[in-house]
Amino acid sequence: MTRLWDKGAPLDARVLEFTAGEDHRLDERLVAYDVRASIAHAEMLEKQGLLAAPELRSIRAALTALAAEHAAGAWHIELAEEDGQTALERRLITRIGAAGERIHLGRSRNDQVLAALRLYLRDAVAELRAGALAVAAALDALAAREPGTPLPGYTHMQQAMPSSVPLWAAGFAAEIRDDGEGLAAVLRRIDKSPLGSAAGYGTPGLDIDREATRVRLGFTSVQHPVTAVQLSRGKAEAQLLFEITLLLQDSARLAADVLLFATREFGFVTPGEAFTTGSSIMPQKRNPDVFELIRARSATALGCLVEALALCAKLPSGYQRDLQLLKAPLFRGIDLGLATLAILPPALASLEFHAEAIRLDPDTRAAEEANRLAVAEGIPFREAYRRVAAKLRK
Amino acid sequence: MTRLWDKGAPLDARVLEFTAGEDHRLDERLVAYDVRASIAHAEMLEKQGLLAAPELRSIRAALTALAAEHAAGAWHIELAEEDGQTALERRLITRIGAAGERIHLGRSRNDQVLAALRLYLRDAVAELRAGALAVAAALDALAAREPGTPLPGYTHMQQAMPSSVPLWAAGFAAEIRDDGEGLAAVLRRIDKSPLGSAAGYGTPGLDIDREATRVRLGFTSVQHPVTAVQLSRGKAEAQLLFEITLLLQDSARLAADVLLFATREFGFVTPGEAFTTGSSIMPQKRNPDVFELIRARSATALGCLVEALALCAKLPSGYQRDLQLLKAPLFRGIDLGLATLAILPPALASLEFHAEAIRLDPDTRAAEEANRLAVAEGIPFREAYRRVAAKLRK
Amino acid sequence: MTRLWDKGAPLDARVLEFTAGEDHRLDERLVAYDVRASIAHAEMLEKQGLLAAPELRSIRAALTALAAEHAAGAWHIELAEEDGQTALERRLITRIGAAGERIHLGRSRNDQVLAALRLYLRDAVAELRAGALAVAAALDALAAREPGTPLPGYTHMQQAMPSSVPLWAAGFAAEIRDDGEGLAAVLRRIDKSPLGSAAGYGTPGLDIDREATRVRLGFTSVQHPVTAVQLSRGKAEAQLLFEITLLLQDSARLAADVLLFATREFGFVTPGEAFTTGSSIMPQKRNPDVFELIRARSATALGCLVEALALCAKLPSGYQRDLQLLKAPLFRGIDLGLATLAILPPALASLEFHAEAIRLDPDTRAAEEANRLAVAEGIPFREAYRRVAAKLRK
Amino acid sequence: MTRLWDKGAPLDARVLEFTAGEDHRLDERLVAYDVRASIAHAEMLEKQGLLAAPELRSIRAALTALAAEHAAGAWHIELAEEDGQTALERRLITRIGAAGERIHLGRSRNDQVLAALRLYLRDAVAELRAGALAVAAALDALAAREPGTPLPGYTHMQQAMPSSVPLWAAGFAAEIRDDGEGLAAVLRRIDKSPLGSAAGYGTPGLDIDREATRVRLGFTSVQHPVTAVQLSRGKAEAQLLFEITLLLQDSARLAADVLLFATREFGFVTPGEAFTTGSSIMPQKRNPDVFELIRARSATALGCLVEALALCAKLPSGYQRDLQLLKAPLFRGIDLGLATLAILPPALASLEFHAEAIRLDPDTRAAEEANRLAVAEGIPFREAYRRVAAKLRK
Repeated sequence: MTRLWDKGAPLDARVLEFTAGEDHRLDERLVAYDVRASIAHAEMLEKQGLLAAPELRSIRAALTALAAEHAAGAWHIELAEEDGQTALERRLITRIGAAGERIHLGRSRNDQVLAALRLYLRDAVAELRAGALAVAAALDALAAREPGTPLPGYTHMQQAMPSSVPLWAAGFAAEIRDDGEGLAAVLRRIDKSPLGSAAGYGTPGLDIDREATRVRLGFTSVQHPVTAVQLSRGKAEAQLLFEITLLLQDSARLAADVLLFATREFGFVTPGEAFTTGSSIMPQKRNPDVFELIRARSATALGCLVEALALCAKLPSGYQRDLQLLKAPLFRGIDLGLATLAILPPALASLEFHAEAIRLDPDTRAAEEANRLAVAEGIPFREAYRRVAAKLRK
Repeated sequence: MTRLWDKGAPLDARVLEFTAGEDHRLDERLVAYDVRASIAHAEMLEKQGLLAAPELRSIRAALTALAAEHAAGAWHIELAEEDGQTALERRLITRIGAAGERIHLGRSRNDQVLAALRLYLRDAVAELRAGALAVAAALDALAAREPGTPLPGYTHMQQAMPSSVPLWAAGFAAEIRDDGEGLAAVLRRIDKSPLGSAAGYGTPGLDIDREATRVRLGFTSVQHPVTAVQLSRGKAEAQLLFEITLLLQDSARLAADVLLFATREFGFVTPGEAFTTGSSIMPQKRNPDVFELIRARSATALGCLVEALALCAKLPSGYQRDLQLLKAPLFRGIDLGLATLAILPPALASLEFHAEAIRLDPDTRAAEEANRLAVAEGIPFREAYRRVAAKLRK
Repeated sequence: MTRLWDKGAPLDARVLEFTAGEDHRLDERLVAYDVRASIAHAEMLEKQGLLAAPELRSIRAALTALAAEHAAGAWHIELAEEDGQTALERRLITRIGAAGERIHLGRSRNDQVLAALRLYLRDAVAELRAGALAVAAALDALAAREPGTPLPGYTHMQQAMPSSVPLWAAGFAAEIRDDGEGLAAVLRRIDKSPLGSAAGYGTPGLDIDREATRVRLGFTSVQHPVTAVQLSRGKAEAQLLFEITLLLQDSARLAADVLLFATREFGFVTPGEAFTTGSSIMPQKRNPDVFELIRARSATALGCLVEALALCAKLPSGYQRDLQLLKAPLFRGIDLGLATLAILPPALASLEFHAEAIRLDPDTRAAEEANRLAVAEGIPFREAYRRVAAKLRK
Repeated sequence: MTRLWDKGAPLDARVLEFTAGEDHRLDERLVAYDVRASIAHAEMLEKQGLLAAPELRSIRAALTALAAEHAAGAWHIELAEEDGQTALERRLITRIGAAGERIHLGRSRNDQVLAALRLYLRDAVAELRAGALAVAAALDALAAREPGTPLPGYTHMQQAMPSSVPLWAAGFAAEIRDDGEGLAAVLRRIDKSPLGSAAGYGTPGLDIDREATRVRLGFTSVQHPVTAVQLSRGKAEAQLLFEITLLLQDSARLAADVLLFATREFGFVTPGEAFTTGSSIMPQKRNPDVFELIRARSATALGCLVEALALCAKLPSGYQRDLQLLKAPLFRGIDLGLATLAILPPALASLEFHAEAIRLDPDTRAAEEANRLAVAEGIPFREAYRRVAAKLRK
């Protein structure tokens, strides 16, 4: 943080700092996607006779090279370039001259950045889903590893009925797989091609082919009408953050169980030492920090979701600069989702259950007893319930 | 609000007030659904030999009568009954005696209330979708009514490029239809039968048939395993509130445009007088209150969503009483969604556009001019852009 | 909820339902305060020569009578009256005729409702503070009742160092007293007289005396300039909801501790039976519902806060109808705060600690041992820490 | 972002990445404060006879040097060091050996980091307040610059009554000064010394003097009891974020007005060119991006607030690792508050009002006319209102 504002920096530097903000860093992950979308756009222009074949070849080669160099760390977007789109076009022009000045025909930064973002989000969704499935698989493995380990089934944090480690793990696995499906469902909003909507009002005076870019980039449909494109900003983003929040809330509940079961008083489970840390003053402590931080990250996800929704709220239609700020909570949410999903499988694999320490209160059989009594004697359930309750009170 | 707490009320009344809260009022809308699910459950019990045929007939008749009487306003859930499930079972027993005491075999309030809630949510989703489609149709009608009315296309709240009332309305119609699809997608999480999971650990000692109740109630699948059922609480609810939030944020942006266009300074449109109110001190004022309140309700939706997500956050697994509080934000969100969707079509129909007052700045043709120049002269777009800009600066 | 929208109700009834919403119910609690502010306003008018003395007497008498009758339940605000201010003025005019038509001189509904709201909020803050202090006193009493009961001091949910029930209770008492001070600090934003700002632009053509009404109503200052009054809407409301959220989050953490300590596995404490409920299928269960709902209500408070903040966000200056919706989350938050504070003292008094079951791991003395070793031998703390750690590992 | 998780990194590196996260970057701003608190702690130890005078001198000199070197950019906290506290102690020991191993006597990382954070927050509050006052002063200057410029006073976004640029600016100035007072009020929660509470359960076996460190660091009081310290985590942080949210919401409303007044259709004002940006395809456009981003940043503030509150919600008492994540939203909120406050004064100074284009509808005099009529003829206000309304209808 340069904190230009309190150092008498020149005005234009302060305005640049305020408006560009951290965009140059955030846009780093979009460069490769911008290149793909830009090449598709250029190919469409050539097909429509708006770009000559040699120019297309030159653009394609230069963009491909720029992408490769960027991936190799040879260049980064600079603050002075404001954003990734400007950086790419500037470097393209530097490299190939006038041909580079032709690429922005028939598009605006508004549809350009959205195309790159949606291509990125498709990959992010795939990665998040794979992460969710890996967590579910780790829960399956845990269940398989502890086939006979009992566990009290709790309601209201009180022992209620008999359960088991496999049944406990299977419940979480099912919900985390459900979260994976929820993530996949976000693709409905992502998978629409914005290209050709330009600033939100199309490209008058130009004969472009929106279907051509859609096909090249593998989008499911072209987003119609052009005015819908900017109105839709923030909705796919918010839905992805919403699904990440559900996923991280499920992970947090899993972590809350582990933290409870790992107390000295429960003594059901011990997290692997690699997933704990020590204390700065208590020589005896091993703290289950990893599971605490998994619990905590659900709060960060909620913050990201609220920020994304609030950014779009009440804005008049048409592109507004406010929408640029969506990237920060979006990327933060994706990153914390991926990080949490990545640490969970080894953390779950490290759990050591202590079957011998897990004791079920005999009363947890009371519901079963009432069930059996009702069936055996043909009496109403309520009567069986009262009889079992009376017996227990003695 | 009895506010028992500050009146020296007896302790049990205060605890009842605190725990039951407004449940007896909220559960009113679930009674009919609870009856349907209870009858399906009783039919399954009979099929499994856990209930005699005459008892089933008696239960079915009594529940059907109770539902009809409730729909007719003949009875309401009382605070002392705590919740709708207890009220129904109590009244059933009062009416048919011992047979009524048999119905709770093989279920718990936990899966009972969830079955009723999900049946209700299916209907609520259908009603919300229909409402969204009606709004989109009202926007289509508006576009058809003003086929040639121009409108500036704005970006950054500045006139940018030419647009029109039909194009403006079509953008919103597309997004509100998209919200309708988003609402439908919530059914994936709703449409799972919880019956048979009981308190979250199944029904040991009983041979029940979860598939039978699923088929009778038309759920798409049985939710497995039983431990997933209570873990999933709040997720469908939150997703529905999320989609309502998106829908109301789109409505709010539509209202924001109308409020802007209806200022004296824009003068593009006048809302129908029925949708405005007067001032208590300014005799001349007509205020567009309906559109202001449409804008405002997106904030209420966001509050409901945050409340629902926060309620479930970090809870250990297994049913917790906290989950009961989900109903309040859920029903509030659904009701405000329906109310907003219902007022929008007549409010949109009342809009009177003033085509003669809508003037586009000639500069809004600059992008088109640059496009045409680039094509006509075969020059790069950037060069055309600079030439048009130079001309405009003069 | 009449749900007029789906019943083909006439348009004006639907618009009334949408705009007035639940205002007639919400405004009930403001009637007495509106009467006080209205009398102060009338007295000022008379002092300024804008109202004759007999008219003032007539207005004062009628308003006083209306307030008494309302308090006795003799009348309620009706939906058709839209809001409490209109209801009061209408009834005043019905009762005393033309004199009643004089009271709205020099004010608008905007400053009128805000004056009543702020008078109410002063009382609400006092009641909430008293409630917080009562909870702190209940914690003091608990500490006094269990002077020698040990408790492990936890960090990371692991036993860390020795603590005790008094020390545990004193920590919460201190924080809840801090919350009480936080509530009191909200008065800074509440205690400003809005009267005389009218619709937000003063009362041109009238010689009113804003200081006079301020003094009569006991506000600390007159809010200046008039344009600040409507801009400030929602800020005191949000601050109060913020402080209620902190208070309920502290209460929720207290409840989380009790729920943990009351598990069978900890077995440290049992809540009084009056504060628990039974299960519908498990005859043996006693569930700590009251403490679960205390934990849950912090989520509702957060929802109210977010709703209030989001309502005001990004609005152009000057009164907007959106602000009317502030009352719902505000009153909901206040009510749930009061209800939670009222149930906590008896719930805390009911806690039965089981000192014999509370065992501290001997290792919780390790930090003390390292401290003593460092002092006794004059060695660095880090060396003492390593020595104690080595001894414990054996 | 190293994204170790998807690269087959060794487990300990992945756990470190997950647990330490961005702490090493975030803690950079706390180093100088940690040094101050550490020196105060060491001085107290020496006073209590727990540290020899030469050791104190050595520690003080080394810490002072480390702080100076850090300020000069000579070293940074490394990821492998996990956090700033560890980095500082490690470097201290490297530099002065055994004496450095003595400094952690009588404290824990828990109270150490909190002391540094609170010292930092005191400065942050002062800086934010100064920023708010500078914005208010800029609004005063604007009012002084446009003494006679009229402005319609709006309600419901409709012209309501006469206002002026000075009155408009003064309303915002008053509210932003109020926000400055709100920021100052956060000090009540910040200004308590946590030192000596160690991990939350004091320092058994050691005779330390909490009052001595309090005096040296200028805190108003020692926080009692020790168990309150960790319970209070997040509350001052959330209150600061709450006040920043109010401040940024006021700024956002100011920006919303400017954006409205700067539309072509209003034409009341033009932001300075330095505060606008161009379009990538529309040569004619100047966009008021700075004001759009000021409007948007209120949403980011809300996200930070929700994240901070959600992080602490429902946690059992005693330090939990979750609390570590508070720093990220806290610092983000402070930074965006400072950045917004810094850009506002020059942005406001750049506003060029067009008095000639600002026309008030004659009807905005209607309330004044009714007032004058009521006084002149001694008729009730309601009658005057009706007469003026009737006249206007003609």
